[in-house]
Amino acid sequence: MLFCRPLMETSSDRRQEVLAETLARFLARGAHANVTKLLGRVRPEDVAAVLERFDAAERLDIFRLLISDFPDSAGDVLTGMEPARRLALLEELTPEQIAGLLERIPVDDAVFVLESLPPALHDQLLELVDLRELTGVQAQLAYPEHSAGRLMDTGLFALPETVTVRDSIAAIQEKRDVEMIFYLYVTDRDGHLIGVTSLRQLLMSKPETPLSEIMQRSVIKVHVETDQEEVARQASRYDLLAVPVVDDHNHLVGIVTVDDIIDVVQEEAADDLLRMAGTSEGELLYEGRVLRVARLRLPQMLISLAGLLATGVLLASFQSRFPDALFLLAFVPVIMGLPGSVGGQAAAVALRDLAAGQFAGSGNLPAFVGRQLKVAGVLGLACGVLAAAAALAFQRNPWLGAAVGLALLVAMPLAALVGALTPPLLARLRLDPAVASGPLLLAVHDVLGILVYFALASVFLRHLAG
Amino acid sequence: MLFCRPLMETSSDRRQEVLAETLARFLARGAHANVTKLLGRVRPEDVAAVLERFDAAERLDIFRLLISDFPDSAGDVLTGMEPARRLALLEELTPEQIAGLLERIPVDDAVFVLESLPPALHDQLLELVDLRELTGVQAQLAYPEHSAGRLMDTGLFALPETVTVRDSIAAIQEKRDVEMIFYLYVTDRDGHLIGVTSLRQLLMSKPETPLSEIMQRSVIKVHVETDQEEVARQASRYDLLAVPVVDDHNHLVGIVTVDDIIDVVQEEAADDLLRMAGTSEGELLYEGRVLRVARLRLPQMLISLAGLLATGVLLASFQSRFPDALFLLAFVPVIMGLPGSVGGQAAAVALRDLAAGQFAGSGNLPAFVGRQLKVAGVLGLACGVLAAAAALAFQRNPWLGAAVGLALLVAMPLAALVGALTPPLLARLRLDPAVASGPLLLAVHDVLGILVYFALASVFLRHLAG
Repeated sequence: MLFCRPLMETSSDRRQEVLAETLARFLARGAHANVTKLLGRVRPEDVAAVLERFDAAERLDIFRLLISDFPDSAGDVLTGMEPARRLALLEELTPEQIAGLLERIPVDDAVFVLESLPPALHDQLLELVDLRELTGVQAQLAYPEHSAGRLMDTGLFALPETVTVRDSIAAIQEKRDVEMIFYLYVTDRDGHLIGVTSLRQLLMSKPETPLSEIMQRSVIKVHVETDQEEVARQASRYDLLAVPVVDDHNHLVGIVTVDDIIDVVQEEAADDLLRMAGTSEGELLYEGRVLRVARLRLPQMLISLAGLLATGVLLASFQSRFPDALFLLAFVPVIMGLPGSVGGQAAAVALRDLAAGQFAGSGNLPAFVGRQLKVAGVLGLACGVLAAAAALAFQRNPWLGAAVGLALLVAMPLAALVGALTPPLLARLRLDPAVASGPLLLAVHDVLGILVYFALASVFLRHLAG
Repeated sequence: MLFCRPLMETSSDRRQEVLAETLARFLARGAHANVTKLLGRVRPEDVAAVLERFDAAERLDIFRLLISDFPDSAGDVLTGMEPARRLALLEELTPEQIAGLLERIPVDDAVFVLESLPPALHDQLLELVDLRELTGVQAQLAYPEHSAGRLMDTGLFALPETVTVRDSIAAIQEKRDVEMIFYLYVTDRDGHLIGVTSLRQLLMSKPETPLSEIMQRSVIKVHVETDQEEVARQASRYDLLAVPVVDDHNHLVGIVTVDDIIDVVQEEAADDLLRMAGTSEGELLYEGRVLRVARLRLPQMLISLAGLLATGVLLASFQSRFPDALFLLAFVPVIMGLPGSVGGQAAAVALRDLAAGQFAGSGNLPAFVGRQLKVAGVLGLACGVLAAAAALAFQRNPWLGAAVGLALLVAMPLAALVGALTPPLLARLRLDPAVASGPLLLAVHDVLGILVYFALASVFLRHLAG
């Protein structure tokens, strides 16, 4: 994110600004008829973006107008909103109103909205949704979290291999409700996925050709239980606009479209960023609720607190062995900080390589760890020499310089080793690897740094004390 | 990234594994004819992924076979590789060979490969590319880095508004070289973008209808200089498969397709992650070169070193005022660590909100900062009480408890304030906001923590010393 503001404002920025101002003016005048007229003329995505600029009460007013006059677009607006604002809005509606909204949006979007809600509201809605026979939603929620089954759109379009090009085009012309058609999946008599072709290929082929003759037989596909991140990786690697989803028996059960894949990539990136900082995506859902957000962060914070207290006790007890050498303290922040930095860097690169599927080859992880060790060694040498020079300049004590320099030279590669190994290890244990480079690991690096530093200082004790 | 390994292995994983094993077996036997035969039968994307599993020499062998026998797919393999491996391969080839490869891939991919190279190689290649009249590449490289102009595909397909549906379909059937057609952009006589329609809409319309009657007139578009992150945001918000790119005069000059948009989102996410850890994407390009990577990280590391040394001098000089109260030290890591954590959390949430375009409304930033302050206040209170209790238990000194508890209560919100404000501020100054939550800011939090802690300790001096 080198530049966060667009180098040039886009037309949609300007459009949203005008929309926001006009809406605000109409609302201030209580001109609800005008608001309704305006809402009928704009894209639901723009309304979703513009709603973020209003306060909670105005947002609810506008949304209520949408529900009564444009119920279809109200559902789309809901899908396009930020989680915290969506939750706040939904809590003001009756469960029946919400169920009514969910019925009007595609099943995969309904699943997405339901998933983003707190468990209590989610369960309450599911009961209502069940009554209304939105069974598709129930079925998709039965797949594991973050799986292709949760993400997929089941309103897919597939034809048997014996159908001709002419009939396929006729079928597409009739299917007005399927939103995005660019690939045409081909199945055998029993619904097994056996090929794929494109709308464009249809246009290029003779009308009487059966699909079996023009289809590509090798299809990139995923299983219903494949993790969404892997689905995104497949789509990205093969530049696909949609990935077909099959069950255990290769029956085609849905497709994941590229718009949802972009959402997955963004969501996972945000999640990694937040987890690395020691919090989580729940932060976005509960953003207005101070206590909820604080509670999200508290567990890791308490573990950090315990780790840092232990470090402190170590520090105080070590220093008490050098009562006359308070100057040792001047290097404690460096010894605690730099290994933490280099460990965090190794962990960040490991996370990125994990996300890119880089540790698939057997030799890749050891090679990676080796590289991180070497880089940390070089940095440890450079920083060690500089810190030792500072110690000499500051205290004219070569033994202090040696202790500081050696401590960095040892602790920095050690921290890089821990940082590089922890994320892949956690991933292998099916735990969250992003936590690894967060506050937790920093406390580990602190303890390691202090131990190495004071161990070396003890060795040089006689000279230091003098 | 909750689970990094797929819950279920995908078919393409297995395919790549089989491919890797077979290739390795053929290579070991020196059966080059078999290798060639195999390479001719598989997807370039799979070859790119599988090459990552071989060592440098084998990789070069396989790639040389590709160049001589499947030059078209060699270019695609190159595009699909990790930057570090791509660079290593390219450095083994002659500039003429590289130029030959670049000529065979789409202009936007050639721009992408060139951009990822170190400046020296890049310049050398550009001279050759110029000679061969790949002028499109030159023109695109003239746009700012990370702009839509760099990213776009200029081999687009647009038709004038007066063309009929029948003639449009005929034109698409002839245009065999344009890779992805799903939208059909419509221009006026002078090449201005005035509408868009889809392949599917064409199929649904009467053959004699002119495009002007079926096209949608309000087109989401971006300017050539729009930042790529904004392009991705538009595509994601409106669920587009491609975004048209126009110049100052609304002339349609290219399109950015969704496959490139996914790459942008992934790249920006990786970049944020690495910058937050105090390094950069160059890490991925130079991964094998220890000294290059170390040099990338060194500048920030040195600033950290300076900051931490200053903290250390502060710490030592403060502690020298309490020669009998070494137990003060036991809380120094807590005082340095927890504010840093909460500051990093505020910065991470700010980064995520920046990426989601959340600070567009004028009141949004103050509201965000206010929320972060409150959360940090709650956490500061909780951690402060616990740390004070630890101080009481540990030293039976209520004054120490008061100093520790109050220090956290003050320093944690202070750190959250700095962490929350820095990324948006840097973004507004057109600087990199991700650096904000990295090692640099940690040093700032350290100094702040120490200052607050010892200032409070000084107030309670008499009681503490006793």
